[in-house]
Amino acid sequence: MHQKNACFLVIGNEILSGRTQDANIQVLACALNEQGIRLTEVRIIPDIAERIISTVGECRARFDMVFTSGGIGPTHDDITALCVAEAVGVRLIRHEESFRRLETHFASKNFNEARQRMAWLPEGATTIENSVSVAPGFSIGNVHVMAGVPKIFAAMVKWLVPQLEGGTPLVSASWHSPTLYEGDLAQGLEAIQSDFPHLDIGSYPYERKNGRGVALVAKGYDPAAVQSAAGRIHALISSLGANPIEGEPAPDQT
Amino acid sequence: MHQKNACFLVIGNEILSGRTQDANIQVLACALNEQGIRLTEVRIIPDIAERIISTVGECRARFDMVFTSGGIGPTHDDITALCVAEAVGVRLIRHEESFRRLETHFASKNFNEARQRMAWLPEGATTIENSVSVAPGFSIGNVHVMAGVPKIFAAMVKWLVPQLEGGTPLVSASWHSPTLYEGDLAQGLEAIQSDFPHLDIGSYPYERKNGRGVALVAKGYDPAAVQSAAGRIHALISSLGANPIEGEPAPDQT
Repeated sequence: MHQKNACFLVIGNEILSGRTQDANIQVLACALNEQGIRLTEVRIIPDIAERIISTVGECRARFDMVFTSGGIGPTHDDITALCVAEAVGVRLIRHEESFRRLETHFASKNFNEARQRMAWLPEGATTIENSVSVAPGFSIGNVHVMAGVPKIFAAMVKWLVPQLEGGTPLVSASWHSPTLYEGDLAQGLEAIQSDFPHLDIGSYPYERKNGRGVALVAKGYDPAAVQSAAGRIHALISSLGANPIEGEPAPDQT
Repeated sequence: MHQKNACFLVIGNEILSGRTQDANIQVLACALNEQGIRLTEVRIIPDIAERIISTVGECRARFDMVFTSGGIGPTHDDITALCVAEAVGVRLIRHEESFRRLETHFASKNFNEARQRMAWLPEGATTIENSVSVAPGFSIGNVHVMAGVPKIFAAMVKWLVPQLEGGTPLVSASWHSPTLYEGDLAQGLEAIQSDFPHLDIGSYPYERKNGRGVALVAKGYDPAAVQSAAGRIHALISSLGANPIEGEPAPDQT
């Protein structure tokens, strides 16, 4: 079965300048996995209209779905809705239901021109609800536009993604060892990958405050094959004289 | 003066699957800022040869410099060197100095075929040194290929970036306030942006365990203009009855 693929456009100078550490990619990736949608590209681009328009235009044609984060607030650098309308080829119009909600939320004296801008969406868009903020995200065609603020982004993902048509969920199984090195298991791991061509067999060195090691991961859409490959990974680690530990290594305690 | 621009390609299924939280983008972005090189796009792509080759090919033509992370270890999914050679149009050859270093580092019995692969680089490449690992990164033309493991990546960035021809460093100044909302300052902020068209004037809502607020940032290559714009930001916050606090809000204590 064809797995739907997705591209995530992170719109924001603040990530590219190093000011802000991204917190949204992992949230979206994990939600899409559960829904059987594969995140196959992420692009982080600046708040420049021509870059947003051309990138949305290219990616909505190349991927089954496009998700965006950032640029839907009330300030001058919030230009995502306008750019997505342009890329999709529709007008920006006032979304009446969103306008009324914002008007109710803000006292009439605070519902200024800047805040009213948040109710202007591409014609034909449907809103993405969230429990945190009254400012709407929206979907138009295969483009899903969400907020950049992590708490609001996560709430929008939680509301939206379970409604999207996906496929079989991605599943994975892992073993790790603090005494092995990638160079020692590369040959054995390649043999496992050859025997399971439809799975991703990955090898990930890790560093922790109290030591290092390698995690080996089998990932794919066939749970039985993933379990078989994980059994082979276990046997490979054992055959090299190490003690396989199930799952991923624990993160450092902070 | 033309600011050199750069694209960063993060090569790794583990970021796209949500397994791993990226830690390298911010490190590279900050190092490039200091060197006066502007990171204007990041792409995260999977370990698939055709995707790596086409993306490197496209980005090396579109941007002044391309940086990559990931895929230079000894395992079957480490295909970055081969793909970059293909994209640049040169052969992969054994880099003799790297080979000798690896041979010295690993006892002869451990210097197996998988580890020897790490010494195969595109013809004409120069190596990127680092203090952590003996496996080399490399530069070929405007493409700079580095490790994905954060500690090694950071060491390679630290060695490489100060040697690149850059320009004026990017500087920024910020004020924040825990009592303001974006919608209240949007109009005033837009006026500041209009008066400083060569700066980025950004507005970033933040959430902390003990509250929320908005940070306002002026950023650009002209320190005097950045300071003037920051003065205007200070005045704007004060004019709205709030108390401006210099700099960025402190992160949550973890």
